[in-house]
Amino acid sequence: MLLTENWIHIDKTVQVPVYLQIANGIINLIRQGTLKPGSALPASRILAGKLAIHRQTVVAAYDELYAQSWVDVYPRKGIYVAKNLPDITPRLLQGTIEKSCFASKTYFEVDENKIPFPDLFKPANDTNLIFNDGFPDTRLAPVELMVREYRRFANYHFTSKYLMYGPEHGSENLRIELARFLGETRGLQIDPEHILIAKGAQMAIYLIAQLLISRNDTVIVADPGYPAANQVFEQVGASLELVPVDECGIDLDAIEAICKKKKVRLVYVIPHHHRPTTVTLSSERRMQLLELAHRYSFAIIEDDYDYDFHYSSSPILPLASADYYGSIIYIGSFCKTIAPGIRIGFMVSPPNLIVQAMRLRKMIDRQGEQLLEEAMANLLKNGDIGRHLKKANKIYHERRDILCRLLQEQLGEHINFKIPDGGFAVWIKYLNGLTAFDVSQKALTMGLTVNNGKDYFYKNLQPNQFVRLGFASLNPKELESAVGILANAIKKLV
Amino acid sequence: MLLTENWIHIDKTVQVPVYLQIANGIINLIRQGTLKPGSALPASRILAGKLAIHRQTVVAAYDELYAQSWVDVYPRKGIYVAKNLPDITPRLLQGTIEKSCFASKTYFEVDENKIPFPDLFKPANDTNLIFNDGFPDTRLAPVELMVREYRRFANYHFTSKYLMYGPEHGSENLRIELARFLGETRGLQIDPEHILIAKGAQMAIYLIAQLLISRNDTVIVADPGYPAANQVFEQVGASLELVPVDECGIDLDAIEAICKKKKVRLVYVIPHHHRPTTVTLSSERRMQLLELAHRYSFAIIEDDYDYDFHYSSSPILPLASADYYGSIIYIGSFCKTIAPGIRIGFMVSPPNLIVQAMRLRKMIDRQGEQLLEEAMANLLKNGDIGRHLKKANKIYHERRDILCRLLQEQLGEHINFKIPDGGFAVWIKYLNGLTAFDVSQKALTMGLTVNNGKDYFYKNLQPNQFVRLGFASLNPKELESAVGILANAIKKLV
Repeated sequence: MLLTENWIHIDKTVQVPVYLQIANGIINLIRQGTLKPGSALPASRILAGKLAIHRQTVVAAYDELYAQSWVDVYPRKGIYVAKNLPDITPRLLQGTIEKSCFASKTYFEVDENKIPFPDLFKPANDTNLIFNDGFPDTRLAPVELMVREYRRFANYHFTSKYLMYGPEHGSENLRIELARFLGETRGLQIDPEHILIAKGAQMAIYLIAQLLISRNDTVIVADPGYPAANQVFEQVGASLELVPVDECGIDLDAIEAICKKKKVRLVYVIPHHHRPTTVTLSSERRMQLLELAHRYSFAIIEDDYDYDFHYSSSPILPLASADYYGSIIYIGSFCKTIAPGIRIGFMVSPPNLIVQAMRLRKMIDRQGEQLLEEAMANLLKNGDIGRHLKKANKIYHERRDILCRLLQEQLGEHINFKIPDGGFAVWIKYLNGLTAFDVSQKALTMGLTVNNGKDYFYKNLQPNQFVRLGFASLNPKELESAVGILANAIKKLV
Repeated sequence: MLLTENWIHIDKTVQVPVYLQIANGIINLIRQGTLKPGSALPASRILAGKLAIHRQTVVAAYDELYAQSWVDVYPRKGIYVAKNLPDITPRLLQGTIEKSCFASKTYFEVDENKIPFPDLFKPANDTNLIFNDGFPDTRLAPVELMVREYRRFANYHFTSKYLMYGPEHGSENLRIELARFLGETRGLQIDPEHILIAKGAQMAIYLIAQLLISRNDTVIVADPGYPAANQVFEQVGASLELVPVDECGIDLDAIEAICKKKKVRLVYVIPHHHRPTTVTLSSERRMQLLELAHRYSFAIIEDDYDYDFHYSSSPILPLASADYYGSIIYIGSFCKTIAPGIRIGFMVSPPNLIVQAMRLRKMIDRQGEQLLEEAMANLLKNGDIGRHLKKANKIYHERRDILCRLLQEQLGEHINFKIPDGGFAVWIKYLNGLTAFDVSQKALTMGLTVNNGKDYFYKNLQPNQFVRLGFASLNPKELESAVGILANAIKKLV
């Protein structure tokens, strides 16, 4: 039979290379049965003439067909459609019907409350303006730096190094650079063996909870606090003890009172810009907390997720920097530094815990994304992260000041707040009988999403007076509009 | 004070842009105290003249210094070193000593046997030739396809879409493409809502074990079997029941006998090329297994990790394709398709389990690597994965045939084996009193790594006669050398 120019359609404007278009065209002819198994294909010279293209392009197409097993090549005879086509038709199962629908529910029992769905505030998607919980502005994310690193992935020799299984505690290069970075910025005297690279601080919390907490172990958390951590602790069976937070941080007397009554396994603290209240744990309390940990032998998770974002005063060195006894597991993240979608976090602890965390991590997902970890290692090594942090701090500092000024000017009589030292949000208390729920409802009708107060206090979904306003991802004009709407919403309520 | 050309060293041969070299040079002068806070910097025109570079380069350097808060700009007056330098010195903790060493052991108790270290065979790094457990050849990995996708990441607008939090069950595009691909290749009639994208099949096994298994629940696995799955089941407290495997797959009479004695929660099967024995579960047994699942209400994990690699016969449709009742959780992976280091796997099940898996996954690591998932979606959409699989199948088919021929020719009297239908390895039994342990020891001295037989039978570390020889990652020449060494090693032992 004869191939004609009409049988294969070549379109030079599309992205698919011409040789692949020809190969795909011939595959379609074989699949349709137009070209039968065993039939000869035209010589490359002849087909090239018909299609008015270079002969080498046809040769490349035939090579592709051969590599995919669609043709057999007989030297000096020619190229023939393969007798055994590579299109594999799976063998049907005995007694199956042709089109079965997938079951809509498992036949075996699934406890649909095993992982409860936290009843938290979900932003509506239909407003342009959102006071979020305190996320960085992805418009300021150093995408150009990431893109520069991704360009290196385009180098075969670089990429091919990371195709096999890698270390379950993360890239060696990243652990080396991170040990240096944490030493320079946080005074941590650590080696790479103290570090496990995790997928965000979240995975670090999960690993620690699984390793340290047994059913009914007592875990102390702040209230208001961080539900994504509380949920993990409860999932492994922890009995949570809640302690209050004042302007110097978590209440140590309350912690000690609990320790006197029962064995405490773990205390979870956010020492800088505690979420949601934004307070920083004072230097004195830090030393006292270390002493308590020593006296009562509990472990501390020090979640220092936004240590790198400080505006009006310097950060305080982490508890981990003065932890001579080994009570602290220090966790942090680059999800706020680069962007929430770029998930690299870490845990720092004595090696006997790191080894257990490595083995558990290997069971969960084997290892991290090696190429991404190499990219981050290089950004730390080049000082790019440090430079980006300085620029971002300057911008977020301005935004914090703008939001606080606008709140004071337009809402001064209806709210109370303290200017946070750093971080991404302001914690305010509504006055004059306003509730976060009512303000949220009213603001939504006016085009602004603002939290309804559900996310802060442990399992207390009653209307309350508190709200956290993230300022980092709104530019000055957006901050002005958002506060304007908030002020109008409140005016209608009081 | 005057800046001179000597104060700042510019090297046009290095990768760092010149403007950044100037900015970094000035930052160093500020940090050293040579440039004092409040002192003026030279006008850009003058510095450009001194350094013999374009004035715009100096302007860019000053912009960088301003963005990093190192300088203040006074319009019409000039540029001054900032009075409040952005180099933040953290506040020391009261009573800390300057250089503390990080603790070498936790003060709180860590159960160092909580996650036991499986005593499996570890390949020595000092041989060039390795019969591995059955991994794809990373030299054949379609790196050029991955690299093409990574190039797209270099597009800011593409990348910036994936900077925020994403869906915890994986990329929408990938779930759409995967539903189509699994329908075409495996006859699964599913929608994206039936899919969770995980980090390899390993994460799918972990999620299912955490969700379905309570302490002392009975889980049936094959013996010999897959230790990385057994370990996860035991970690959540499962009581394992072992059943044998014959040439038609896992023994169903043994499964039914257990079901008659006690409640079975879960059965874990590898229906194609069972690891380690390479047998395929027959069509008849598949239907019987589904019936048993229905009768005794247990869940089945169908781990079909190398369905896509078939040589001498067509694959059999998965159990999941005929699962009208909802007994099957189907899992698979692209780690064998692309490379082990590129970790994308999936689980397919009715949505009531997917929803629970999503919530648990969110607690563990929030979400997957969005950019990588988009890359995989595009490779599936373009048909690149299908084309690569055809090529890889052809090459691995040849390698399987070469290994089996060499084994027959050179070791025929000392071993027994069946040619596997597909997959990456051959399962052999040593004869004439040979043990896998002895052969492994001897071969190691001759430059070949081959398993010592520890990895196959559950907690049975006694010398045995079985070994799995991975052929996929050895080319014909390497296969020839490896079998040559194996034959010599055996000759010395018998």
